[in-house]
Amino acid sequence: MNSKKYSLGYLANFLSAQLIGNPEIEINSIGSLERAQAGQISFLQESNKYGKFLGVTKASAILVKDIGGVGEKFTGNLLVVKNPYVAYAKISRLFDPAPQLQMGIHNTAIIGEDTIIGKNIAIGPYVVIGNGVKIGDGAIIEAGSVVGNDVIIGEHSRLCAKVILYHGVIIGKGALIHSGAVIGSDGFGNANENGVWHKIYQLGKVVIGDNVEIGANTTIDRGAIDDTIIDDGVKIDNQVQIGHNVCVGTNTAIAGCVGIAGSTKIGKCCMIGGRVGISGHLEIADGVVISGMSSIAKSISEPGGVYASAIPAIPRRAWWKIVLRIMQLEKVVERIKILEKKIT
Amino acid sequence: MNSKKYSLGYLANFLSAQLIGNPEIEINSIGSLERAQAGQISFLQESNKYGKFLGVTKASAILVKDIGGVGEKFTGNLLVVKNPYVAYAKISRLFDPAPQLQMGIHNTAIIGEDTIIGKNIAIGPYVVIGNGVKIGDGAIIEAGSVVGNDVIIGEHSRLCAKVILYHGVIIGKGALIHSGAVIGSDGFGNANENGVWHKIYQLGKVVIGDNVEIGANTTIDRGAIDDTIIDDGVKIDNQVQIGHNVCVGTNTAIAGCVGIAGSTKIGKCCMIGGRVGISGHLEIADGVVISGMSSIAKSISEPGGVYASAIPAIPRRAWWKIVLRIMQLEKVVERIKILEKKIT
Amino acid sequence: MNSKKYSLGYLANFLSAQLIGNPEIEINSIGSLERAQAGQISFLQESNKYGKFLGVTKASAILVKDIGGVGEKFTGNLLVVKNPYVAYAKISRLFDPAPQLQMGIHNTAIIGEDTIIGKNIAIGPYVVIGNGVKIGDGAIIEAGSVVGNDVIIGEHSRLCAKVILYHGVIIGKGALIHSGAVIGSDGFGNANENGVWHKIYQLGKVVIGDNVEIGANTTIDRGAIDDTIIDDGVKIDNQVQIGHNVCVGTNTAIAGCVGIAGSTKIGKCCMIGGRVGISGHLEIADGVVISGMSSIAKSISEPGGVYASAIPAIPRRAWWKIVLRIMQLEKVVERIKILEKKIT
Repeated sequence: MNSKKYSLGYLANFLSAQLIGNPEIEINSIGSLERAQAGQISFLQESNKYGKFLGVTKASAILVKDIGGVGEKFTGNLLVVKNPYVAYAKISRLFDPAPQLQMGIHNTAIIGEDTIIGKNIAIGPYVVIGNGVKIGDGAIIEAGSVVGNDVIIGEHSRLCAKVILYHGVIIGKGALIHSGAVIGSDGFGNANENGVWHKIYQLGKVVIGDNVEIGANTTIDRGAIDDTIIDDGVKIDNQVQIGHNVCVGTNTAIAGCVGIAGSTKIGKCCMIGGRVGISGHLEIADGVVISGMSSIAKSISEPGGVYASAIPAIPRRAWWKIVLRIMQLEKVVERIKILEKKIT
Repeated sequence: MNSKKYSLGYLANFLSAQLIGNPEIEINSIGSLERAQAGQISFLQESNKYGKFLGVTKASAILVKDIGGVGEKFTGNLLVVKNPYVAYAKISRLFDPAPQLQMGIHNTAIIGEDTIIGKNIAIGPYVVIGNGVKIGDGAIIEAGSVVGNDVIIGEHSRLCAKVILYHGVIIGKGALIHSGAVIGSDGFGNANENGVWHKIYQLGKVVIGDNVEIGANTTIDRGAIDDTIIDDGVKIDNQVQIGHNVCVGTNTAIAGCVGIAGSTKIGKCCMIGGRVGISGHLEIADGVVISGMSSIAKSISEPGGVYASAIPAIPRRAWWKIVLRIMQLEKVVERIKILEKKIT
Repeated sequence: MNSKKYSLGYLANFLSAQLIGNPEIEINSIGSLERAQAGQISFLQESNKYGKFLGVTKASAILVKDIGGVGEKFTGNLLVVKNPYVAYAKISRLFDPAPQLQMGIHNTAIIGEDTIIGKNIAIGPYVVIGNGVKIGDGAIIEAGSVVGNDVIIGEHSRLCAKVILYHGVIIGKGALIHSGAVIGSDGFGNANENGVWHKIYQLGKVVIGDNVEIGANTTIDRGAIDDTIIDDGVKIDNQVQIGHNVCVGTNTAIAGCVGIAGSTKIGKCCMIGGRVGISGHLEIADGVVISGMSSIAKSISEPGGVYASAIPAIPRRAWWKIVLRIMQLEKVVERIKILEKKIT
């Protein structure tokens, strides 16, 4: 279905790369070094880890950092770039087989009143858009998405099929929001009176900056009083849950299945691994890295630290013994105390 | 978008609160003590924690428990109530900016046969409703929701956009179900014969009581033979997974990302923190509190206990050392035994 | 709503079971041994665990492995089969109350160009199907599902309401995909340049084998370069997240809330418990069993092992003491070293 082709010279120019080889050769897709076939371009991310594939790859060209790392193992075409992985990212867009939606508003889309819609937009079938909505130029809203009243969607932002934006949600420019994501649902707020819960209506909004990506089936709750805020350049994977009044700083990346409880503030440029849980009302400093499957129960004030708490699985019988020992740690310390008394 | 206004006198009357100040003043929204502006009402939840903001808040009125806790720090209007947080919850509804759906059945909604629909209902665009469905008075079903055959939806219950109810699901009165929630999907049942799985068709239903709230993208599976049951007043946050034949007792609250495996019974008035995992076939007593990110592998028979098992993250290098020590706990105990023998 | 009835003789014949009793008796549903009523058939899974209910059950017939295990406790009708649980699975289908969709293409479904649709299919209301799609004989696509360009759906596969298949996804025969599942969304790929993330467009597909079941709100990402692969007979529960380029081997079962990070290969016939997290770029051997709530951070090369790492919750105060001890394990070992030096 993808029949895009580019000459190597075109790609060199696109990347401002140094071309060593034949600029006329035609590249039709991207392949990993190990499995690339003729017609594909590949990349050498780390010489020490992937260099072994240089001798076997059938790639027609390779993105490399320097010629020295390639040596005589590969005698084909090279594009020399500062960062081969970033260069791969940049050209990956050129080969993207994702279909282009037809421009215009599908005749089954339902558009509310007082809605302002920009130029060159695409609104797919069975989309439902509320009243007072503003949609920027070049925005794409795919089949079956529902956009609540008073939502603002920035230029060139794209909602994939079945995205739900509740009323008042603000999305910046260049966003990509995957299917099933729900943004602006109620935060989990209840006040207990004699055992019965009274709902706290959630009066805030969700405000999302520019160039944010949000994964499939991710949920971001609206604020209780103030807003939930996702800053520019934040990248969020699938099935992430972000509670009310959370703030996520610029360019932070959040991997799949992460849960962030209400009112927590995450700094800029953090990297949060998959399945991490973060308690509410915390502050995480800029540049903090959290290893996958960790639990964060306290604020982290020092920028740039790397944190972890996951325990890797081992054979179950051995693990059960260890759990028993963990549960008896007090006794272990008691026994040491007794020994210390006897010896001193 | 929200232009609701109430006099302070109206609010005092609504809450049966003692008003100290000017009943004529107009309140247009709710603000936190710290950030409230003129025209907003705020609340003092805990004097010792938030009392410091009393001197700086610009709120036009504050909900307080007693005048003594306010003293001379705040000289504006007060509403004295038994529980300021509960009072805040009660008035939050008055300021809710959530749009009201237009009454009636949208002309794109598809309604099955033998369906009984109450008065004053709203059924939005592209809703699909099966055969034999009963919808109570005042119910709201928003855009794109799908309601299977033989479903019952109680009075004044609301399905937000894109809620899925499989066949036979029963929802009580006053429910609020957020977008993307799927109720009545098949429980995970398979019988293994020589390595191949045979599907166990899920013949039970899901029965949900009155005044239940269910969060965005939460899933509740139908029972294998008997039903899955969610009792009155249960509050469930986003991305919670509830397996087949689970029972959740009255007024229990379940925070985001919790997973409850099949056939487990949760008592009344429990509070289950975010990201908790609960194994199948367990019984959890009434009033049990489970801290976020804990794993529950055994039944809890004593009511009202507080349980935990999460390990908070620390710097990764230090954590890796600790993991090594944990894995060698048997050796540590061996060394203590040797010492004990030598000394005795 | 379910009014299916079968004679016991019919069921015996269906299962190739030995019938001890009256073949004329009519069975109208399945019940658990404990709660079965007249007219229901039940099954004795493990004599030692459930045999106690043989004396009290009101079931009209029971699936048993051997007559000896029943003895005189139950004098009603028996069907003797090799594996009562598997036999229960097989007949559960006969009593399934799930409604049959009306054959044909609903007049609100939107079908793209160059699409090939098989015989005896059912496509529900408000379904949107892209260009170049192939749909096999007997396939069912329920209300509101969205099928992207160039998707292939095998014979007798069923998409429940609101399933999303992105472009190029391939689904084998006999699949059952539950509501809210999103298949083929972008993998989480970003390359960092000076703190800013460049999106890595995801050029691969998702390829799903025959007889696969996928739970509600589960997400499976498309590959970055190569494809994400789910082999024949794999069973996946709700809210599972499968990253790009993951491969899951034949007949592996994955329980709810599992997260599998990118490029990990899972073997055949594995059983992965609920809420397990698996890091990226790992290889898990065939037949490995992972206990619920474990974290897998390293490859598992030995087939058939059983692994665990979850810590069961205990009362919170006791747990907090233990966490303190865990964090001080280095000090504990230091104290032992000092004692060892003094004594030697």
